[in-house]
Amino acid sequence: MPEHNPTNRQFRLAARPVGLPDRSVWQVTEESVADPKPGEVLVKVLYLSLDPAMRGWMNEGKSYVPPVAIGAVMRAVGVGVVVASGHPDLAPGDHVTGILGVQEYALLPRAALQKIDASKAPLPVYLAALGWPGLTAYFGLLDIGKPQAGETVVVSGAAGAVGSIVGQIARISGCRAVGIAGGPEKCAFITQELGFDAAIDYKGEDVKKALRKHCPKGIDVYFDNVGGEILDAALTQLAMHARIIVCGAISQYNNTTAVKGPANYLSLLVNRATMTGMVVLDYAARFGEAAREMAGWMAAGKLKSKEDIVSGFETFPERLLMLFNGENLGKLVLKVADG
Amino acid sequence: MPEHNPTNRQFRLAARPVGLPDRSVWQVTEESVADPKPGEVLVKVLYLSLDPAMRGWMNEGKSYVPPVAIGAVMRAVGVGVVVASGHPDLAPGDHVTGILGVQEYALLPRAALQKIDASKAPLPVYLAALGWPGLTAYFGLLDIGKPQAGETVVVSGAAGAVGSIVGQIARISGCRAVGIAGGPEKCAFITQELGFDAAIDYKGEDVKKALRKHCPKGIDVYFDNVGGEILDAALTQLAMHARIIVCGAISQYNNTTAVKGPANYLSLLVNRATMTGMVVLDYAARFGEAAREMAGWMAAGKLKSKEDIVSGFETFPERLLMLFNGENLGKLVLKVADG
Repeated sequence: MPEHNPTNRQFRLAARPVGLPDRSVWQVTEESVADPKPGEVLVKVLYLSLDPAMRGWMNEGKSYVPPVAIGAVMRAVGVGVVVASGHPDLAPGDHVTGILGVQEYALLPRAALQKIDASKAPLPVYLAALGWPGLTAYFGLLDIGKPQAGETVVVSGAAGAVGSIVGQIARISGCRAVGIAGGPEKCAFITQELGFDAAIDYKGEDVKKALRKHCPKGIDVYFDNVGGEILDAALTQLAMHARIIVCGAISQYNNTTAVKGPANYLSLLVNRATMTGMVVLDYAARFGEAAREMAGWMAAGKLKSKEDIVSGFETFPERLLMLFNGENLGKLVLKVADG
Repeated sequence: MPEHNPTNRQFRLAARPVGLPDRSVWQVTEESVADPKPGEVLVKVLYLSLDPAMRGWMNEGKSYVPPVAIGAVMRAVGVGVVVASGHPDLAPGDHVTGILGVQEYALLPRAALQKIDASKAPLPVYLAALGWPGLTAYFGLLDIGKPQAGETVVVSGAAGAVGSIVGQIARISGCRAVGIAGGPEKCAFITQELGFDAAIDYKGEDVKKALRKHCPKGIDVYFDNVGGEILDAALTQLAMHARIIVCGAISQYNNTTAVKGPANYLSLLVNRATMTGMVVLDYAARFGEAAREMAGWMAAGKLKSKEDIVSGFETFPERLLMLFNGENLGKLVLKVADG
């Protein structure tokens, strides 16, 4: 490394949160960065993805990935630039993405990083449409939802990282896209900027009535990011043989009481419908294929990636809460350093 | 008709029940039976199937079949004998099954009846293993559950009409069959008489703990007839890529408050599992094929049909409640008349 080893600031999980995670669950640590051993790569973190799933990783107990251990650096996907490399594949100046963690520098094995091309798309797009949220939308909608041209696709969290892509892929698939989002600004964004056919403002409208109005033939595919009351409203408006993708339940992640189960789940029986959980990691073998198709759609102007970029590594705890307060429009990205 | 036209007693729905349907929701009427017009058949009802689904048919509102109208004869599947026929296919003395209704005589178009062979199986079996409950178990388990040899299949309501068949077909499919039922007598019945690998007494055991014990590799297929707390317990013990068949929710049918949604539904996400509703009517085109296979299993001694036959047309209202009080062992059948 050309310079004196820099100091690495880190957000570590100090305690398991109850409800919304405030500052008390975090411990900020500093350590000097080590040089990469053979096979390792040292990455300067430029952007971190702030995701609703992070809240789940903070809980103890079985989930689709192990919980973040108490005392460990908080898990986060990020984009960075290589500053020192112990592997011939990557050289200083190369851009990479991976699970970098909420820290300023990440020292990782080569295999934990994917090289990305900063000339093809701005770096934050690799955390949005060309990253996990885009891949989640792609595989969840197309592989599980199997939308057919002419069908109606409804997505909740429609102005968020995943939902905004789901609606656009629904349109590309020849479907009617109806988004549920909070507030007039988000609703205008998804219809006017992203081309959704209709938007429902759950903060200002009766969702069940609005679904009836905007989905006169019922919901064929419902992509759920939020759970709770909105999932229950969608269940009342299913078309026969509807498919529900359970991608997340952001309304329930900070509950201090039990999760609210979908009381209308017997609509699955009435409508011979199906509700399936998905985790994007399962599709890793097909990420390349999907990313190429998505990049093609972006190049053709059919798919827009929208990032909501906020700055300041030290503001991480408060920025994370923006997700649960519905403050972000598009993919929430924390800018950590200049590239 | 050879004799003076008989009187037909009928149970008609007088009011929509709130909670358990007591005598006040029924009206008993009497009318004399009309002669069949060309194409019609007059059937003397011998056995009526008492089914949990009947509770749902008594409610107003959209479901997979229209509700029974106020003032109409209560809908019920039955077996009977032809007493007069206006159609060349059927002659007096022939046995038939169909939606005969809770009455002593049914006058129906030929197309509403299926001929059955009383020499092949006792008549009540055509309301059990060789009737809708058996077909429901067959298509729900095999078509939706897709059990693979070596997998673990769990069924609730395991001593009931559908559940008792589900577990036996699971065994025939090379699976481990675990049944959940209420009380030691039912548990002994499904393990000792029907060959289930294990039984869980939900009245005497912690279902979640018992599932953990009896399904050490998790639940691959869960066939749900009951909903409520038991569905929630099953959700906590799913294996990866588990399939849940939503066939019914008997624990919730008489609720006077909202249905209890499955609070643990996010287990679908963690385990990439799927929950699908089924209605046996959708498989009508394949009933013949299924009934032939089931009859073959019965002849080979691999599948037992168990009926719980109670007598007395006039006792219908009280007999129906046996289902919701968990009093029946096997298929509950009301004997209306001698054959």
